[in-house]
Amino acid sequence: MKGVCFLLTLVVLALATSIATASDPSPLQDFCVAVDEPHKALFVNGKYCKDPKLVKAEDFFFSGLNTPRDTNNPVGSNVTQLNVDKIPGLNTLGISLARIDYAPYGQNPPHIHPRGSEGMIHFQFNPEHTPAVAFAGLSSQNAGVITIANTVFGSNPAINPDILARAFQVDKNVINYLQKQFWYDNN
Amino acid sequence: MKGVCFLLTLVVLALATSIATASDPSPLQDFCVAVDEPHKALFVNGKYCKDPKLVKAEDFFFSGLNTPRDTNNPVGSNVTQLNVDKIPGLNTLGISLARIDYAPYGQNPPHIHPRGSEGMIHFQFNPEHTPAVAFAGLSSQNAGVITIANTVFGSNPAINPDILARAFQVDKNVINYLQKQFWYDNN
Amino acid sequence: MKGVCFLLTLVVLALATSIATASDPSPLQDFCVAVDEPHKALFVNGKYCKDPKLVKAEDFFFSGLNTPRDTNNPVGSNVTQLNVDKIPGLNTLGISLARIDYAPYGQNPPHIHPRGSEGMIHFQFNPEHTPAVAFAGLSSQNAGVITIANTVFGSNPAINPDILARAFQVDKNVINYLQKQFWYDNN
Amino acid sequence: MKGVCFLLTLVVLALATSIATASDPSPLQDFCVAVDEPHKALFVNGKYCKDPKLVKAEDFFFSGLNTPRDTNNPVGSNVTQLNVDKIPGLNTLGISLARIDYAPYGQNPPHIHPRGSEGMIHFQFNPEHTPAVAFAGLSSQNAGVITIANTVFGSNPAINPDILARAFQVDKNVINYLQKQFWYDNN
Amino acid sequence: MKGVCFLLTLVVLALATSIATASDPSPLQDFCVAVDEPHKALFVNGKYCKDPKLVKAEDFFFSGLNTPRDTNNPVGSNVTQLNVDKIPGLNTLGISLARIDYAPYGQNPPHIHPRGSEGMIHFQFNPEHTPAVAFAGLSSQNAGVITIANTVFGSNPAINPDILARAFQVDKNVINYLQKQFWYDNN
Amino acid sequence: MKGVCFLLTLVVLALATSIATASDPSPLQDFCVAVDEPHKALFVNGKYCKDPKLVKAEDFFFSGLNTPRDTNNPVGSNVTQLNVDKIPGLNTLGISLARIDYAPYGQNPPHIHPRGSEGMIHFQFNPEHTPAVAFAGLSSQNAGVITIANTVFGSNPAINPDILARAFQVDKNVINYLQKQFWYDNN
Repeated sequence: MKGVCFLLTLVVLALATSIATASDPSPLQDFCVAVDEPHKALFVNGKYCKDPKLVKAEDFFFSGLNTPRDTNNPVGSNVTQLNVDKIPGLNTLGISLARIDYAPYGQNPPHIHPRGSEGMIHFQFNPEHTPAVAFAGLSSQNAGVITIANTVFGSNPAINPDILARAFQVDKNVINYLQKQFWYDNN
Repeated sequence: MKGVCFLLTLVVLALATSIATASDPSPLQDFCVAVDEPHKALFVNGKYCKDPKLVKAEDFFFSGLNTPRDTNNPVGSNVTQLNVDKIPGLNTLGISLARIDYAPYGQNPPHIHPRGSEGMIHFQFNPEHTPAVAFAGLSSQNAGVITIANTVFGSNPAINPDILARAFQVDKNVINYLQKQFWYDNN
Repeated sequence: MKGVCFLLTLVVLALATSIATASDPSPLQDFCVAVDEPHKALFVNGKYCKDPKLVKAEDFFFSGLNTPRDTNNPVGSNVTQLNVDKIPGLNTLGISLARIDYAPYGQNPPHIHPRGSEGMIHFQFNPEHTPAVAFAGLSSQNAGVITIANTVFGSNPAINPDILARAFQVDKNVINYLQKQFWYDNN
Repeated sequence: MKGVCFLLTLVVLALATSIATASDPSPLQDFCVAVDEPHKALFVNGKYCKDPKLVKAEDFFFSGLNTPRDTNNPVGSNVTQLNVDKIPGLNTLGISLARIDYAPYGQNPPHIHPRGSEGMIHFQFNPEHTPAVAFAGLSSQNAGVITIANTVFGSNPAINPDILARAFQVDKNVINYLQKQFWYDNN
Repeated sequence: MKGVCFLLTLVVLALATSIATASDPSPLQDFCVAVDEPHKALFVNGKYCKDPKLVKAEDFFFSGLNTPRDTNNPVGSNVTQLNVDKIPGLNTLGISLARIDYAPYGQNPPHIHPRGSEGMIHFQFNPEHTPAVAFAGLSSQNAGVITIANTVFGSNPAINPDILARAFQVDKNVINYLQKQFWYDNN
Repeated sequence: MKGVCFLLTLVVLALATSIATASDPSPLQDFCVAVDEPHKALFVNGKYCKDPKLVKAEDFFFSGLNTPRDTNNPVGSNVTQLNVDKIPGLNTLGISLARIDYAPYGQNPPHIHPRGSEGMIHFQFNPEHTPAVAFAGLSSQNAGVITIANTVFGSNPAINPDILARAFQVDKNVINYLQKQFWYDNN
């Protein structure tokens, strides 16, 4: 039962570390369910709207958020983002949700959200020997996530190792070692 | 166990019906923990910021979100708003969270959020004979809530019953009856 | 002459009860006259822009605002919205205008504006035995209007009467009666 | 009667030339009635809020908008701005209103609104031999007005006449003449 | 060497007179490189986004900002705007840059920026007998520029000279003279 | 002379990597020069405004931007931020400027701006054997800067090294070594 208790304590912790610096454009309609139009080769900032006459309840629904996720991975966590790609009805509404599962002693490693969400480097850590789960609200329909280690050492093409060696004040061999790792993406 | 399963299905439903039309002012600092300064008789839009040197981890923390709330009331639901009044660290950050407990067949009656959140009249209903709970994200540090029935029929001072009788197309006796009820506030 | 005097007094009253909580996206061009492109089956949040080379003075013009409207209807009022659907030049500009005519003792029944305008439930009432008129500014190119009674009791499909009976604390027969009424839309 | 007819036609014209490029901060409270606190020597962007417990209906009210204004002045017009200085309840709400009276053949000379309203140079002209009146909505609680001629030729201290002579491609004597005029402010 | 020293002093001056009143819509993607789609006859507020898979480093690059511009013109200045038309990668990002070259005693004549930038009438003047240069940041991807003299006296079609004579309190002959000038555009 | 040429090429590069995701609150006055009021123990989001009657030209001025900065430090660069702390007149205007000096082969190490500016991890590098300089515009009056290495490995109190060892996939000895370094701040 400890895991379940911890879970709900973590909700607030996750909220405290998931706060916002920006906002999505305001809606100009009651809803604007997202659709992709790749065959038109036209892209807009965000998403097109579905024809209002074709909108269905399912456009605002996501099933299975109650299923625990697999956290058997290098960082011991698994992030399920409920953004506009998963719930097209969120389009233009400036908010999304995430479920984060943690293995015992698992972590959601240091990261930032480039749009609509804090911008400070933050992480979460489960200090217990039982699994935990958190729910977080983010103030954008698509807050994005940039994991620090993956972006700095796992970018493709790679950043010049001489530059990183100076920036991180370590020997170039450490940088070379880091750039050869497989950087697991828990999102 | 049915209630627990239903709980997590409702999370998305609550999200779908708790979406946003406005945004808080952007932060100009890393944080701006809210403080009240009533003895100064100066009020601003929102809250003042705490002296950054006095900010503590507790300013971003709320304990006890895991405790089920009492839903033994006329509408069969109980809303715990985690807004800037409860978590002062949310000040200027444009997001808040709510826990909503539902009795079996309980409802969160028709309402709107005047700031930062949908603006459409919406409600939630628990169609099961077991309790349920939902977590909702709202796109304001203080979205507010206006319960339709309480506001229209329970306002103080009361709205002229002749006006309401015409607006709701009922006999003035029905309005008089409604204005004499006790309108329970589940927030 | 009383009606004319009252008319202009009401202008300010209407303004006081027609204020704003949100904003439209900022313009990125001098103007962006709205056009519909239904045959393309592409919808955006708001409206497309007309080719700037084809824009005409008429796109910013609406004639006949000086004609009194017919207020011979159940609520005794008539709202003429001058939003982006009527004046395509308002597209992206975040403002619109409305003319509201009142019969003697007429009302604009309790309503909210879901986008760009107050969000509080409000109404206007003409307490005089002469007609009146008001002009209101709204802080969105398309503020929308949700009339409380029409939405709650006249929605299609209908809301479960058991839920409404509990929310409004009346007998289910009252709800059934209300759901059978014709709900006049004065907009 | 011609004047009255023209009046209402002008409403739309005024609207078409009074459109918006910016927005006020969103409200974080139901209302935030403006108060001045000069004795505190503290100024904020906009206005402080009145103690909510002291707010009165009069804070949202302005009387006398129905009285025609005196237009016997050099430009033949008179602008009554109903901004937050006149109606303190407009504070944080992002909208204001103006009444503009025109003498026969009067004009509201070329001007811009620096905050919350179009930004393009515009003017209104009454082409009739009867008085006219317009009502305009502006998308800021305090849109401001900068009359072109007054600002360029009537600023205090004066702009170097050599600079203005080159900018306006006229002889320096013309600039000297203009800088000696009395520049009437119709606001 | 005096010119070079003056150059860098002017940078701050230019900034002080190039400040902002509005903001572009927030980005909903990491980038949204601008493309024009004129053959589709569809226009949006701002620009479409390039297919993310086709974005190149060049979309964020502009070469030759180090080359002094020709200032041998009536106003003695030359503005190079680096807005979204020149650097398509600025699309949705709410900022642009400008290089302004000044001849000895040259000026950037009185103007305003209708979108995302101050809105107050301002100008810059090089009081030295050596050339100067300034770099300015503007808070929009496309702030626009309206030169006062060109717009008032050089508009096409021309503004009625009777209206301008009254607005600028000069003889109609002066207006006729001004409307016949060639108004050089230094942008 | 190579250095000077490179300098101006870098301007655009710096711009391309210094773009924006958020916006400051809109101004409600022509200007709102920042003042600190620490003796009042009242803090707001951003800054208070100076009494408009006491505003001076110096509030919008910063001298010495033309002086090259000392880049003899571990990263080989020096950032001069011209934000609201340096130019109080920028308050509420949503823009700031920075001068960045680079030693030969110097770098501005990987960092993010938490407010009003890109949010993506970025860096600049001078690939030449001569000094270079860049000017960057940022879309906030106080964009802030978070240097990745300093924040992750130099925070006080230190982050648990076990957590960082797992996040960066290196031996705990490497983390211990990094946490003992002096992390130079080039801002």
